[in-house]
Amino acid sequence: MPNRRIVLASRPEGMPKPSDFRLEEAPMPRPGGGEVLVQARYLSVDPYVRSRLTGITTYARGLELGDTIVGGVVGRVLDSSDPRYAEGDTVEGMLGWQEYAVAQAKSLRKIDARNGPISQALYVLGMPGLTAYFGLLEICRPQPAETVVISGAAGAVGSLVGQIARIKRCRAVGIVGSDEKVKYLTDELNFDGAFNRHTADYGAKLKELCPNGVDVYFDNVGGPITDAVMTRLATRARVAVCGQSSQYNAAKPEMGPRWLSQLIIRQAKVEGFLVGQFVDRYEAALNQLSNWLKEGRLKYREDVLEGLENAPQAFIRMLEGKNIGKQLVKVAD
Amino acid sequence: MPNRRIVLASRPEGMPKPSDFRLEEAPMPRPGGGEVLVQARYLSVDPYVRSRLTGITTYARGLELGDTIVGGVVGRVLDSSDPRYAEGDTVEGMLGWQEYAVAQAKSLRKIDARNGPISQALYVLGMPGLTAYFGLLEICRPQPAETVVISGAAGAVGSLVGQIARIKRCRAVGIVGSDEKVKYLTDELNFDGAFNRHTADYGAKLKELCPNGVDVYFDNVGGPITDAVMTRLATRARVAVCGQSSQYNAAKPEMGPRWLSQLIIRQAKVEGFLVGQFVDRYEAALNQLSNWLKEGRLKYREDVLEGLENAPQAFIRMLEGKNIGKQLVKVAD
Repeated sequence: MPNRRIVLASRPEGMPKPSDFRLEEAPMPRPGGGEVLVQARYLSVDPYVRSRLTGITTYARGLELGDTIVGGVVGRVLDSSDPRYAEGDTVEGMLGWQEYAVAQAKSLRKIDARNGPISQALYVLGMPGLTAYFGLLEICRPQPAETVVISGAAGAVGSLVGQIARIKRCRAVGIVGSDEKVKYLTDELNFDGAFNRHTADYGAKLKELCPNGVDVYFDNVGGPITDAVMTRLATRARVAVCGQSSQYNAAKPEMGPRWLSQLIIRQAKVEGFLVGQFVDRYEAALNQLSNWLKEGRLKYREDVLEGLENAPQAFIRMLEGKNIGKQLVKVAD
Repeated sequence: MPNRRIVLASRPEGMPKPSDFRLEEAPMPRPGGGEVLVQARYLSVDPYVRSRLTGITTYARGLELGDTIVGGVVGRVLDSSDPRYAEGDTVEGMLGWQEYAVAQAKSLRKIDARNGPISQALYVLGMPGLTAYFGLLEICRPQPAETVVISGAAGAVGSLVGQIARIKRCRAVGIVGSDEKVKYLTDELNFDGAFNRHTADYGAKLKELCPNGVDVYFDNVGGPITDAVMTRLATRARVAVCGQSSQYNAAKPEMGPRWLSQLIIRQAKVEGFLVGQFVDRYEAALNQLSNWLKEGRLKYREDVLEGLENAPQAFIRMLEGKNIGKQLVKVAD
């Protein structure tokens, strides 16, 4: 039986197209010493993958043409040469866009399938959850009654940031890309406010929804909405830069108004981060996220396409903002 | 005897002109209860004053037309109704561009004239020294062997930042506006490197002088040089935004390339600050600065014009970057 995987066929210019990817067959991998063979069940497609397609090494190596696309996977152990894993175990790891993968045992995380849907290991109890948790709580340190503004607020990370902000007794204001997402945030996730960046006068909306300024800004998007938020910062505001999805498809840096003077006036801080900075504290964070989930304090939606061959489509619609909730691909039952 | 003062005659458009200021006579002020009458001896002109001329309230109230221009002064007590100050004492305070001023006793700081030239209270042992000290040590927390880049590095604050960086066993690299200033930094202040932003290819110069990237950036200037530094940040870099002198004369925000993605890649932090944040710790910092000065570890130059009537000219030449070292005006012996 062959493996199937999706590789980089050409480097995208601007928004990726299906033809930038190629489905190919490969021999079934075999685990060596200390390795584990995993069958993918769910695959996560995430915004950061876009930056890896350029071939430029930033915090991680860019992909070469022909490389399997990177991504987080939850799957089933088929074979293991490591005593920590047995056939039938559920594991999570960075296994890429393929049906079968071999991984170093130590690079995997065991998932207890009795605790809930295993896809949560790619969402609330995985990288997006940890990103929201550490980005908000460690980088921004929100205090009760502060106003927390989130761009990309209906996305996997953003929707959790707003809910964690509310758990911490902050006001959560979301910036999103459609009226349906505004409704999702305010009606289902209990955000204090939200607006559609494509139709709203966002200067006016920020003023209305953040009358005392923006104490915390969690930025997933960048571009003009971030410019607008920068002029509405409260004194000692903290900005976490998690993503810049509006810029990922740009061939060269977009131009925007300079706003560093605002940071002086407001004595404000802007900090970029990667979730990996906090790897030593993942366990405690996952316990907390799991408790909030059990208590019903973190709501979520998944947006699942079926079949590995649909991973490029899932990725592209996520970049286009067409998903509500976490974009996943179901690869096998 | 009348007082003489310099007031705002018109709001500058772009670089201030002498005609934006007016010298006028006013009655000699008289101290009331808890107040002190001070004769100005030295007046400090500083970049932050430019932002106060716009009339827009930022961290401090903008000036109205006809208001005396703000500025730090060292002077002589002529009369005091407060027991803490006696006639003949030397004091420092925000007394503005005038020959005589009345101030609340608690807003003044007594200067021991036996410790050195009294003008130092406006420089190394005053606001610029404290700004350099806290901005570098508290906002950036430099570690030995790190590379510290400073824009506006020959200015009052910048020249001290580089020297404090070297005291902390960092490499100091200065960005300045003339070849004479390059020479001043490398030959007199022992900076590890410096270049002229008007003539150098600064991308190439930063690469050459910061082969391992920029660990700390102390920004007084903003604009294109800051854009260039942002692409050369080292992992976990820290940027202190102290000033944006290249932007002060702009009627509306200048456009520049967006660089927030760089902060993610480098997990870097950019923080604006005002020296007043650290007011509770001024005394300890002044003791440290005074010790470094006595040990000969902080060198400095003063650039002094004589006569209150020359304060606008001193201010304009400082904004034009024509001074080397702290720009002062000597008002009286």
